[in-house]
Amino acid sequence: MIILGIDPGTTATGYAVLETGGRLCVLKAGLVSIKGSSSPERLIELWRETKKIIRKWNPERVAIEKLFLARNQKTAMAVAEARGVILLTTSLAGPRVYEYTPLEVKKIVTGDGNADKLQVKKMLQLTFPELRELRARDDVFDAIAIALTCHFRERRNV
Amino acid sequence: MIILGIDPGTTATGYAVLETGGRLCVLKAGLVSIKGSSSPERLIELWRETKKIIRKWNPERVAIEKLFLARNQKTAMAVAEARGVILLTTSLAGPRVYEYTPLEVKKIVTGDGNADKLQVKKMLQLTFPELRELRARDDVFDAIAIALTCHFRERRNV
Repeated sequence: MIILGIDPGTTATGYAVLETGGRLCVLKAGLVSIKGSSSPERLIELWRETKKIIRKWNPERVAIEKLFLARNQKTAMAVAEARGVILLTTSLAGPRVYEYTPLEVKKIVTGDGNADKLQVKKMLQLTFPELRELRARDDVFDAIAIALTCHFRERRNV
Repeated sequence: MIILGIDPGTTATGYAVLETGGRLCVLKAGLVSIKGSSSPERLIELWRETKKIIRKWNPERVAIEKLFLARNQKTAMAVAEARGVILLTTSLAGPRVYEYTPLEVKKIVTGDGNADKLQVKKMLQLTFPELRELRARDDVFDAIAIALTCHFRERRNV
């Protein structure tokens, strides 16, 4: 099964494509950079890029980070707008969409809801040897962690 | 010219259709009620209803309320997700999209950025005699005020 993990942002959205059928592996992990100047332009760009990713990888599940309460409310609002667009675009495309808070993701991936970014990264590199050499922004690792959370959750429910 | 004003919400989104060509008048003012249980379901419903309104009225301008900092951050996030979907849907449909804060709207409509809802409503009823008998939720009057703000702003720029 293909799981797409997404960590929404205003200028950069991390995404990761997980294959869970045979050997669990990361098929692709990357960043969608948004350059539009106005908020409608940026949302249209995000919508186009999300559709491209869905069309290319045809995931059966999509897992998206749920927003927690942010310190900078203006940024949080802009991220929530981006989340709205991603939720709409992925649900319309067909796959089941799941949402996880950062706390859930950290707890599922490392066993500790208070784990820091480095601990999450280390656990991901232990799970996926192909990530050991990966130099990427936190948003990309976050997206991998979100996809992995979805995989673990599904496996437990079987 | 047709201006569509939108006041986004999580369960109810107010909208108003303004005709500005000859006599300034409100062609339609109503509420989109969203019933979906999950957040993706609700966003899809909102996307469908917004598309219907755009198709029916074919506005040249869309004016949307910009979020100000809210007391309840969880609600604010959900409204921002709805805003993201409305911004995307209306921009993709073609009309120019404008965003105004509640302060701008109150200032433009009543002359006072600190006006309360009743003052805004009274000013709208003075401007549009057809609204004197209208019994509607605040979201509907807010949508009319947002559309009117767009009209006044455009007129000043001419």
